[in-house]
Amino acid sequence: MKACVVGASGFTGGELLRILLQHGGVEIVCATSRKFKGEYVYRIHPNLRGFTNLKFVEPSIDAALKADVVFLALPHGESVKWVPQLYEHGLMVVDLSADFRLKDPNAYVEWYKWPQPHPYPDLLKKAVYGLPELHRDELPGAKLIASPGCTATASIMALAPLAKYGLLGPLPPVVDVKMGSSGAGAEGSVLDMHSHRTYVIRPYEPVHHRHAAEVEQELSRLARREVRVAYTPHAVDAVRGILSTAHVFTERDVDEPTLWKAYRAMYGDSKFVRIVKDKLGLARYPNIKYVLGTNIVDVGFEIDPRMRRIVAFSAIDNLVRGAAGQAVQAFNIAAGFPEDQGLRYIPPHPI
Amino acid sequence: MKACVVGASGFTGGELLRILLQHGGVEIVCATSRKFKGEYVYRIHPNLRGFTNLKFVEPSIDAALKADVVFLALPHGESVKWVPQLYEHGLMVVDLSADFRLKDPNAYVEWYKWPQPHPYPDLLKKAVYGLPELHRDELPGAKLIASPGCTATASIMALAPLAKYGLLGPLPPVVDVKMGSSGAGAEGSVLDMHSHRTYVIRPYEPVHHRHAAEVEQELSRLARREVRVAYTPHAVDAVRGILSTAHVFTERDVDEPTLWKAYRAMYGDSKFVRIVKDKLGLARYPNIKYVLGTNIVDVGFEIDPRMRRIVAFSAIDNLVRGAAGQAVQAFNIAAGFPEDQGLRYIPPHPI
Amino acid sequence: MKACVVGASGFTGGELLRILLQHGGVEIVCATSRKFKGEYVYRIHPNLRGFTNLKFVEPSIDAALKADVVFLALPHGESVKWVPQLYEHGLMVVDLSADFRLKDPNAYVEWYKWPQPHPYPDLLKKAVYGLPELHRDELPGAKLIASPGCTATASIMALAPLAKYGLLGPLPPVVDVKMGSSGAGAEGSVLDMHSHRTYVIRPYEPVHHRHAAEVEQELSRLARREVRVAYTPHAVDAVRGILSTAHVFTERDVDEPTLWKAYRAMYGDSKFVRIVKDKLGLARYPNIKYVLGTNIVDVGFEIDPRMRRIVAFSAIDNLVRGAAGQAVQAFNIAAGFPEDQGLRYIPPHPI
Amino acid sequence: MKACVVGASGFTGGELLRILLQHGGVEIVCATSRKFKGEYVYRIHPNLRGFTNLKFVEPSIDAALKADVVFLALPHGESVKWVPQLYEHGLMVVDLSADFRLKDPNAYVEWYKWPQPHPYPDLLKKAVYGLPELHRDELPGAKLIASPGCTATASIMALAPLAKYGLLGPLPPVVDVKMGSSGAGAEGSVLDMHSHRTYVIRPYEPVHHRHAAEVEQELSRLARREVRVAYTPHAVDAVRGILSTAHVFTERDVDEPTLWKAYRAMYGDSKFVRIVKDKLGLARYPNIKYVLGTNIVDVGFEIDPRMRRIVAFSAIDNLVRGAAGQAVQAFNIAAGFPEDQGLRYIPPHPI
Repeated sequence: MKACVVGASGFTGGELLRILLQHGGVEIVCATSRKFKGEYVYRIHPNLRGFTNLKFVEPSIDAALKADVVFLALPHGESVKWVPQLYEHGLMVVDLSADFRLKDPNAYVEWYKWPQPHPYPDLLKKAVYGLPELHRDELPGAKLIASPGCTATASIMALAPLAKYGLLGPLPPVVDVKMGSSGAGAEGSVLDMHSHRTYVIRPYEPVHHRHAAEVEQELSRLARREVRVAYTPHAVDAVRGILSTAHVFTERDVDEPTLWKAYRAMYGDSKFVRIVKDKLGLARYPNIKYVLGTNIVDVGFEIDPRMRRIVAFSAIDNLVRGAAGQAVQAFNIAAGFPEDQGLRYIPPHPI
Repeated sequence: MKACVVGASGFTGGELLRILLQHGGVEIVCATSRKFKGEYVYRIHPNLRGFTNLKFVEPSIDAALKADVVFLALPHGESVKWVPQLYEHGLMVVDLSADFRLKDPNAYVEWYKWPQPHPYPDLLKKAVYGLPELHRDELPGAKLIASPGCTATASIMALAPLAKYGLLGPLPPVVDVKMGSSGAGAEGSVLDMHSHRTYVIRPYEPVHHRHAAEVEQELSRLARREVRVAYTPHAVDAVRGILSTAHVFTERDVDEPTLWKAYRAMYGDSKFVRIVKDKLGLARYPNIKYVLGTNIVDVGFEIDPRMRRIVAFSAIDNLVRGAAGQAVQAFNIAAGFPEDQGLRYIPPHPI
Repeated sequence: MKACVVGASGFTGGELLRILLQHGGVEIVCATSRKFKGEYVYRIHPNLRGFTNLKFVEPSIDAALKADVVFLALPHGESVKWVPQLYEHGLMVVDLSADFRLKDPNAYVEWYKWPQPHPYPDLLKKAVYGLPELHRDELPGAKLIASPGCTATASIMALAPLAKYGLLGPLPPVVDVKMGSSGAGAEGSVLDMHSHRTYVIRPYEPVHHRHAAEVEQELSRLARREVRVAYTPHAVDAVRGILSTAHVFTERDVDEPTLWKAYRAMYGDSKFVRIVKDKLGLARYPNIKYVLGTNIVDVGFEIDPRMRRIVAFSAIDNLVRGAAGQAVQAFNIAAGFPEDQGLRYIPPHPI
Repeated sequence: MKACVVGASGFTGGELLRILLQHGGVEIVCATSRKFKGEYVYRIHPNLRGFTNLKFVEPSIDAALKADVVFLALPHGESVKWVPQLYEHGLMVVDLSADFRLKDPNAYVEWYKWPQPHPYPDLLKKAVYGLPELHRDELPGAKLIASPGCTATASIMALAPLAKYGLLGPLPPVVDVKMGSSGAGAEGSVLDMHSHRTYVIRPYEPVHHRHAAEVEQELSRLARREVRVAYTPHAVDAVRGILSTAHVFTERDVDEPTLWKAYRAMYGDSKFVRIVKDKLGLARYPNIKYVLGTNIVDVGFEIDPRMRRIVAFSAIDNLVRGAAGQAVQAFNIAAGFPEDQGLRYIPPHPI
């Protein structure tokens, strides 16, 4: 298949190129960048030196139409300008922005400050939320995939088994997220500079973070009732990686076998999810260190009987599982490739 | 005054030496270390090279009795062997272990796995919990100061104004703590090695962490009712620093002026507490980066009206405000020195 | 082919397992560890969770003899006890220690403080120094491969084209090496702890470092005269990665085309070497950041006409190209696999 | 005395404010910033919150003339526009740019690409190169102090005893420098972003770096002959800190007592220089970790008899000893304060 990456000079675009270059079933026919058009891709993504002589081209619908599948790695609010045309031309579109993630057109007014509700409510309905472990059945043949947000992916994966199997309790889960700097993108503000961003532990948009909307949408669907979350991200000193910690107060005491059963029922068949809960060894809970560079999701949990609380954890690489890798995983299922094609990689250790 | 630091080869002991060397009103008459006795202090604390020619001596009650004040930087369970004798001899004792922090003798069985309740319940009663912003009135002339735990200090400071002014709500606060590696001490396990501890975000004793006991004791006192907390620390990639994030669900809507009033009432006169809540500038919330090397506590908060939630933050340097600095601050008040003697220092930026 | 990894619980052993698990042409029949025998491999190498259910076994010749190829990831001085027996049994042996790297039996007395010259001078002669770009012709069918040291690999690769093409000049090159912490292994000293090893730039064995012996041996061979190097490693705050900077004073002025020609002649056909010398883009010289997790060697250079100096650079991942990856690369050639089997991987960016 | 900091919003300006606020003998009467005029200083330097309510003002000669001493923390090429007027008005000027460091007016054409030689050769003569350990006698009463460059400070300090006492040898020293990111200033390029600058070891302007000119000037003066250096800086993953490693080939064998004598003769009386060369303990050579936040210079050396080489080391904090601290140290001597006023501070450990 022929693929085009639109917005290929950012971190997510670079990771899409990297993964697709190793995919084997895909040919990259265009990589767009307004700012760097005409430049070798490896000058902006130095890791790709020696692996491709591709150059960036001016972004345009025409360029994209040469492809069978288009990956949109554009800012929120930009993808919505591209998707309808590409969709009408029958291309498969994998959108990594938020523009087609929320099913409720009005949610874009509340969470993304759009002046109007989403202009394409029909496309919203057709879009598949591209978290494969939750929407695997909807993906084969899908023409529009809305790839989930990075912290949302981690948070949903930590909580999904609890939501699905009635273990959430009536109180809203507190979701406390810790994340690295690469989520800010390749061109950040002064606070993203090394001097300012190193040796940091601080809140980042601690209330009303936009990913909460996705988390609530997906958990509500699984729980078959409205679920709300108290969502607070933090910035810590790492380039990649997200750890989501979810604090859940249950209605009654829950024991470990019940939780094991729920997590295994949900993820037992998954190629990418590892349940990390050990009493021995170096890693007893999820840790970003052991998933870096991969599409793996490490989930785990602990029970706090004193507080009648479950603490659930999820660790991902935000640029792979939180963005480019998950997009390719969903594309693989949609296009009929093995789910893990291009994504089989054991992380190095230590790193 | 003459001071002795018992357990001076650890990180906390080293920071005590550093602060006391700059104090001006204190002469260090002994620094003990069983392992390094006879060795120059600066060989183990290379920062002290050029500032002192002190050598470590064998720990002994006799050595300590040369001093007017003894700082015990010993492991939990060790201090309790030293305190009664020193106390009987009339010395001032500042204990940086947990051995005299909890008022309830039985709490040591539950939280510290002691086989018996605390053997000196009378001394427990006399001990002042050395968090000066909360116990300033009890400190002057105190003979036994139990210096608080590092994550407990941060967590209590974030929540104290809410507890004191009736803003906690009936649900237990969720306290999600992020901390650096130096809390593990100068001689750690394999997981404390650089290769294993770098590029890490992971839970650390995510349920039933012992500092919860202190936090509950102090918040209950302030709130004049029993308060329990859902307490979960995490390890992140930093040497120093703790950020405590407390999620509080309130009974009714709370507005910003009410919170400002509570935090100002509690901390307005403090020499060390800064309320960080800005809409402009580089630091809008507490961040460990801006308190490193100091005794400062940065506290802040945000309101989440959608969830009827307050998120309260506190950032400290665990070795200074979470240990040695706070111990000297409490000592200063107890001994009649200005509260900030030896502790006036503006942190460097960036670091 | 069947492979055994002896000394599989260390970092190098772990990386060998990781690479071999992805190799496709190799079955791992044993992974030995005295300390962790009976334990799941993934408990010590948490990255391998989900990829293997292998358990560590007691190290023994008998266990190793089940394999066709044995990778020895043992401390210096230990391999020499294993190699002769394995060799006699006709196995292929890839030794990652220093025990068979130096051709001169007496060199072990000088550089490794052995009480006697090397006891197996005949095996020393048969051993191939496993730096494939320099010894590719000797590798096919080799039965004993001495895999190079990590900083030696980087330093030799930076200087090899200058040595081979007569550009070294009569003065000894100054080789100033910067390296991460993982070279210290999985069980380090107190100075390898995160608290002590973070925020560090310091010399590490700044004179008479043992890798100098390998560098001199290989450069002398290429230059067909005795070459000595002034060798000084440093520790910097990174887990992985080595940058070697070689300062070479030339006899006469040298221009860029001459250097390009030398580097291209040496490395133009290599699957793993990239010549990094750009005037545009984000990476104009080698940088560890762009080779992490891979077997790639980035080399580059700059001319300083004022000082009649060439500065040559080389960046590698010490655990892959400096150890496990290079060992597999050499094994591939020796055993008839494609040189890059199991080692084709584009590094993630940023990391 | 009244002081003005011109260019107060950068990192060096911020550190000047921090040090002067703790000085005791200086009142800050203005802190200028074109970009942030009218803004509270602590919004840009969050460390200063609670220590000053100063606001930035528009930079102007008139504002500066209110002061007795003006610290110019301006870019190279800007200070030269300010100095003559301030000097004529009789103010003391401490210039932290390079504009008055080099005695040869033509050197600015070669090293700083000025189109013409320096326009104020008379002021160049009057300017004192503000490295106090080398120019202490010229500083009292000085009206124009040219504060040294950061990597130049470290490199000169490592080599000065060798230059002064005839130990340099005829070959140019190779000076290999490793430095943190804060030298790039508060507003950097894309390569200064956390994602791009973390996990980095790479060359930075590896030939013809401008600080070489200062190093050569000062070493030549001490050696009473022309000394040239082969100078190569590197960027490593640290915010602060410079380690300079100088490789010196001597004419004849040199022993340790000779070197100890030279370093002690040069630095024995210094309040800020520590000679670090131990066989025991945690720090056997200079290391940035133990000088962070201070004006201390740790120097050390090792002899490599095999290569007839001395390796000399120097570790500093680039923003304190490499900029603001050294400027205040020189100012103190010039103005008659104790040399270490405002600069007495023992670094924390570990950090």
